[in-house]
Amino acid sequence: MKILIVSAHPEPKSLTNSLRDVAAEQLRSDGHEVQISDLYAMQWKAAHDAEDFTALDTSGPVSYPFASMAASGDRAFSKDIIEEQDKVLWADAVIFAFPLWWFSMPAIMKGWIDRVWTAGIGYQTGGERYGAGRMAGKRAMIMVMVGGGESYFSARGVNGPIEDLLFPINHGMLFYPGFDVLPSLVFHKTDRLRPEQFDAFAEQVRDRMRSLFTIAPIPYRRQAEDYTELKFELKEEIAATAPPGFAAHIDDSRT
Amino acid sequence: MKILIVSAHPEPKSLTNSLRDVAAEQLRSDGHEVQISDLYAMQWKAAHDAEDFTALDTSGPVSYPFASMAASGDRAFSKDIIEEQDKVLWADAVIFAFPLWWFSMPAIMKGWIDRVWTAGIGYQTGGERYGAGRMAGKRAMIMVMVGGGESYFSARGVNGPIEDLLFPINHGMLFYPGFDVLPSLVFHKTDRLRPEQFDAFAEQVRDRMRSLFTIAPIPYRRQAEDYTELKFELKEEIAATAPPGFAAHIDDSRT
Repeated sequence: MKILIVSAHPEPKSLTNSLRDVAAEQLRSDGHEVQISDLYAMQWKAAHDAEDFTALDTSGPVSYPFASMAASGDRAFSKDIIEEQDKVLWADAVIFAFPLWWFSMPAIMKGWIDRVWTAGIGYQTGGERYGAGRMAGKRAMIMVMVGGGESYFSARGVNGPIEDLLFPINHGMLFYPGFDVLPSLVFHKTDRLRPEQFDAFAEQVRDRMRSLFTIAPIPYRRQAEDYTELKFELKEEIAATAPPGFAAHIDDSRT
Repeated sequence: MKILIVSAHPEPKSLTNSLRDVAAEQLRSDGHEVQISDLYAMQWKAAHDAEDFTALDTSGPVSYPFASMAASGDRAFSKDIIEEQDKVLWADAVIFAFPLWWFSMPAIMKGWIDRVWTAGIGYQTGGERYGAGRMAGKRAMIMVMVGGGESYFSARGVNGPIEDLLFPINHGMLFYPGFDVLPSLVFHKTDRLRPEQFDAFAEQVRDRMRSLFTIAPIPYRRQAEDYTELKFELKEEIAATAPPGFAAHIDDSRT
């Protein structure tokens, strides 16, 4: 199979980049093809702006959503965007490796999402999303390095539950475009890593790489099945028994 | 009073920037002082990297959290970071105006958070946070332009509830450094705005600016009062009756 790994850490010897390399090595030794987008090494442009379009109508103020739709037909986007889109279209699975900075991904990776997920790629003008869309049939997962301890991110931890903090990424940035999203690989207390912990983390990464195409994805509810038309709210019979918050969008009977 | 407005939209005539100007005008006409950081106009550098430090020890791999702590004493950070930190330290309130891109802020603004919230500013090496910290006594709020309709972000909407999607920002990026965080101003269906809607949105902004220093902040629970030491989990008597998810971190009896 074909795997794209997108990584974002400014230090080449960081845990993020080291575990990315462990993942790539395992995948390759299992016979897969791997491409890596090391966003810092590439000096990836983070800010989405007018330069992202090659044929932008600048006769008036630019509406970015409409500009993206207008450009989507022949992908009139800048070369760096097209190259990343081509890697994603090539891949059977996309892995994002990054440190959790301020409860989200580093800006440079958010800029990859903002710019690469154009109309026609990240979202469809026909409205297909959440279980449908251009990325349907592909898998995605995130590998996250978290400075804080596990209890700070537990069900009652002061930061909020880690699954909920990652929901805007897993559900919003990955399931929305159509990916089957795998459970996240989360590593804690990574700022004060002891050498023997690295081996344990690396083994977790190798394990996951071996099961990348067999493990069950997070059973998010599909828009076309479980939500009303027009208002896009959970159907009444589902809402009646669903838990509050983000958990309502997971169908545990599906696992 | 003194107010800093940080805005992030590449189109000068966008709704984001127009409503930012409405806010600034109202505040000034009420006698306040206003500074604006227009991140696109400033060509703000989004990616946090080694260039952010002026006296970095590069004899080995860089640990970014430790580098930030080492630099915090005499704020050995790059000039653009110092300038933004000085604006924040000057301000009594900070307002962030941005479009919701992929369920979070644009990369350029995330890069402002990643870079400006250094040790000593965004977080304290002594561990004071969530209701304490360098920003204690200041107010913060976000103004968010959302392309999708309100129902898509309702309690049962397909995207998840908007308050929960904004929790990593309001609680994680703003309450953590110590700000009193005001309820967000959220505008929906902004991609297809009709001219008469602009006036209604502008009036909402003016109203909020008039009450910026009197409206009650979101009653997030304070780390020093409601959480256990060491594990930083909700105290048992609070957890026993708290709702699941992010809502557990709001103390409704405080409003």
